[in-house]
Amino acid sequence: MKFCPECSSPVELRCPPSDNRMRHVCISCATIHYQNPKLIIGSIPEWEDGRILLCRRAIEPRYGLWTLPAGFMENGETTAEAAIRETMEEATARIELGELYSMFNLPYINQVHMLFRAKLLDLNFFPGPESLQVELFAEQDIPWDTLAFRPVHFTLRHYFSDRKSNQFQFRIRDLAPAQR
Amino acid sequence: MKFCPECSSPVELRCPPSDNRMRHVCISCATIHYQNPKLIIGSIPEWEDGRILLCRRAIEPRYGLWTLPAGFMENGETTAEAAIRETMEEATARIELGELYSMFNLPYINQVHMLFRAKLLDLNFFPGPESLQVELFAEQDIPWDTLAFRPVHFTLRHYFSDRKSNQFQFRIRDLAPAQR
Repeated sequence: MKFCPECSSPVELRCPPSDNRMRHVCISCATIHYQNPKLIIGSIPEWEDGRILLCRRAIEPRYGLWTLPAGFMENGETTAEAAIRETMEEATARIELGELYSMFNLPYINQVHMLFRAKLLDLNFFPGPESLQVELFAEQDIPWDTLAFRPVHFTLRHYFSDRKSNQFQFRIRDLAPAQR
Repeated sequence: MKFCPECSSPVELRCPPSDNRMRHVCISCATIHYQNPKLIIGSIPEWEDGRILLCRRAIEPRYGLWTLPAGFMENGETTAEAAIRETMEEATARIELGELYSMFNLPYINQVHMLFRAKLLDLNFFPGPESLQVELFAEQDIPWDTLAFRPVHFTLRHYFSDRKSNQFQFRIRDLAPAQR
């Protein structure tokens, strides 16, 4: 941020009175522009035979890799609405949303990810504009080596493990930047 | 938002190609400025005798009313770190953080609230700059009529109910604008 979105004057980084962090503050109108983490919300759509729906990404980052349907939560919606909308947008897939299953903190990129369990309602799915392919995968066929994101990897690992005992346990996990 | 934070030119509201929502888009550099929900994170600090720590607000909105310690999650931190920091800032109170207990969607103000269970570690708390008073309340003494926010009200109701059976159950609740 270089300019004030309210008055177009330059902003400077400084710590406002009665604050303890550096903020973008307008040098003219003095508006403080806070920046906060974003929520990424998605689902784990399971078909009645136990297979899980994954999407192959048609966009960067991680073009061509597989992921659960998920995306940025929008203003004006709930977390459940975001999960259902993202599943529709990326996979044109209708789901019945279940419980919140996993949450990930990625403080190094200012993101919080949430994934909900979901029942896939029919097989009339097809790739939305942000997906190259949408497929159902049995546990033994999950493309572990070409998954796009660590939250997807961890969520699927936990999911298949929990499913053996039918005891699904909500988990929060904090991630540090990935080693290359 | 009236001006582009990157180049100071005016922004206009329009739907970018391959999007389905109105966004603030710069008429000069074409940067799309997304706006997303914010996370408010807090704790339910319980002392060893079962009393709960509440703060009386020294700031608007709801000046003078009682609340659990909570506030906007900051970039660069995890949800747990945010809960611990807010409890320290508002009540100078040291806690051991427990499980995520309640989550609220407030889509009409673009917020998601999360409250964690917590063990208050000592009695050396005192009001931070955003609090007038910090006190411990037994269940029968909770100031129900002067609580600041509905998520605090619902969380405390559920908490005392769950505590009777020592079965604390995570809940997500969607709130519509309050009736006046």
